[in-house]
Amino acid sequence: MTNQPKFAVIGGGSWATAIVKMLCENLEEVGWYMRSVYALEHIKKEQHNPNYLSSVEFHPEKLKLSNDINEMVAYADYLVFVIPSAFIHSELGKLTESLEGKVIFSAIKGIVPESSLIVGDHFYTHYKIPFKNIGVITGPCHAEEVALERLSYLTIACADNEKAEIVANALRCDYIKCTTSDDIIGAEYAAMLKNIYALAAGIAHGLGYGDNFQSVLMSNAIREMKRYVKRVHKMKRDINGSAYLGDLLVTGYSTFSRNRLFGNMIGKGYTVKSAQMEMNMVAEGYYATKSAYELNQAKKKKKAKTPIINAVYSILYEGKDPKKVMEKLTEKLN
Amino acid sequence: MTNQPKFAVIGGGSWATAIVKMLCENLEEVGWYMRSVYALEHIKKEQHNPNYLSSVEFHPEKLKLSNDINEMVAYADYLVFVIPSAFIHSELGKLTESLEGKVIFSAIKGIVPESSLIVGDHFYTHYKIPFKNIGVITGPCHAEEVALERLSYLTIACADNEKAEIVANALRCDYIKCTTSDDIIGAEYAAMLKNIYALAAGIAHGLGYGDNFQSVLMSNAIREMKRYVKRVHKMKRDINGSAYLGDLLVTGYSTFSRNRLFGNMIGKGYTVKSAQMEMNMVAEGYYATKSAYELNQAKKKKKAKTPIINAVYSILYEGKDPKKVMEKLTEKLN
Repeated sequence: MTNQPKFAVIGGGSWATAIVKMLCENLEEVGWYMRSVYALEHIKKEQHNPNYLSSVEFHPEKLKLSNDINEMVAYADYLVFVIPSAFIHSELGKLTESLEGKVIFSAIKGIVPESSLIVGDHFYTHYKIPFKNIGVITGPCHAEEVALERLSYLTIACADNEKAEIVANALRCDYIKCTTSDDIIGAEYAAMLKNIYALAAGIAHGLGYGDNFQSVLMSNAIREMKRYVKRVHKMKRDINGSAYLGDLLVTGYSTFSRNRLFGNMIGKGYTVKSAQMEMNMVAEGYYATKSAYELNQAKKKKKAKTPIINAVYSILYEGKDPKKVMEKLTEKLN
Repeated sequence: MTNQPKFAVIGGGSWATAIVKMLCENLEEVGWYMRSVYALEHIKKEQHNPNYLSSVEFHPEKLKLSNDINEMVAYADYLVFVIPSAFIHSELGKLTESLEGKVIFSAIKGIVPESSLIVGDHFYTHYKIPFKNIGVITGPCHAEEVALERLSYLTIACADNEKAEIVANALRCDYIKCTTSDDIIGAEYAAMLKNIYALAAGIAHGLGYGDNFQSVLMSNAIREMKRYVKRVHKMKRDINGSAYLGDLLVTGYSTFSRNRLFGNMIGKGYTVKSAQMEMNMVAEGYYATKSAYELNQAKKKKKAKTPIINAVYSILYEGKDPKKVMEKLTEKLN
């Protein structure tokens, strides 16, 4: 393909590694930025990421590897950001290259803490990227199953459908099906909110609630998500689509989920700090809870009814007793 | 309570045992019919059902036990039927007592094979029970978790809300929350359909599909269920309520589910017959698939679009190869 735009993935974690793998199925060259020089050297010599999805083999001659984010920005037409939202502000602070004319896709689930904006809004507001050049890649998709080449479905959302199709075509392969959508905002919020609900599911599990309750919690969560997303961006969407309900379920039910695991530890009696230290990983849902809660509370009128988010917030940020909070929550579910 | 109507549970399986346990939390006496004289004698002497949920202790002095269904019908005002739908026709064939004036609640998930009717319709059509005397008890609720007294939510549906409340009050306790509804037909169909989707989930799992696909399958299943139930009985309902989505999830995700287990064996290469023999149990979803498929096909116009039901039907009843059928199905999901 002569007109094939150049892609670069920004991030070195498991989901970034999975996206590079998919892109390598279709593109002749894929740019890949990560901070760790050690990991980059390892990939060059040993053909796999030493830290994540290490079973995935790469052909280094297809990769343009760099630990200089500016080099990557200069190289690529499409930049796919896949770093925890908590680090995006500091990464972007390194930029000297302009983002003008670049197409930015986010595969990040969460809100940028410094701006309290979802990633798309953050690029629009602080980097003047027009919305037609902003998109979202969303699951339901565990990176670990991409590594195993198990059939997975992605939703590629962008206001400009042509760009969504370009990204979809770059990702589609034997084990990846892609659909496109124009609901960037809904997809981003859903991807963020589901981590809170997975965290709630983990807390419940840690406290000894069973599968019956988990299903009631998820049934209430999707209704809460629908109310929340409708308040943020009202448009015609089927909340039961894969990008919303599917994404909620894969996270809320899976043992791979960091958020569920984090919640489980909280339910079992760990403090927030000790759970975070034990996991040695960022659970996006932790930040998402604060952002989603505050964003909703900041609304003067028409706050969405969000009993689950409120419960998780009071456990994580107000030091409330998980057992008591969950008991109160059970009264509000149906 | 002097005006407390008398309840009897018809059936000796795990869900029947769980319902008797709940009723015993609230009522002074509970009627319990099952065919097995051995099991009845065992309950009297050993205080537990030897075959199901044997950890649950009963106080035999609170139970009115009988293996004569007519004695039970004569005894009770409210009859709760909890036997596999495949056996309901033969059980009702034993009746010499009239059902006139009785309130019939069904906790059966499935269609009566002989009449191709859901249980409520079967009682209405063949026993002239008016709809105001017919109700449904539905989950999401695994009997096994009731035995463990893990918090569970039930939906009690009846056209006559007063009767729904009477049943709800008889079941509600520390670990059981009940909501009432007037959507008997929707709740019954949903309870039946979810077994087919659990079966499909099992087939996919048996074939090696992972969690990512499972979430896409469930997301498509709830949309299919919505279309199906809307065709059968159009009314305002939130398909994401616990009685519909919650019930789908608890069955589709749980390792307790007989239907998922049955599907898993089919996916792994067992024939229908060998899977049934191996399990030594009726998987309701097997019969439900045939009934749901044929009912939909019989519609001259406005058939619901049901790719998942059709796929399961072709595997179970047309001898099609599960691997090929599922591959074709994956193309139809999104």
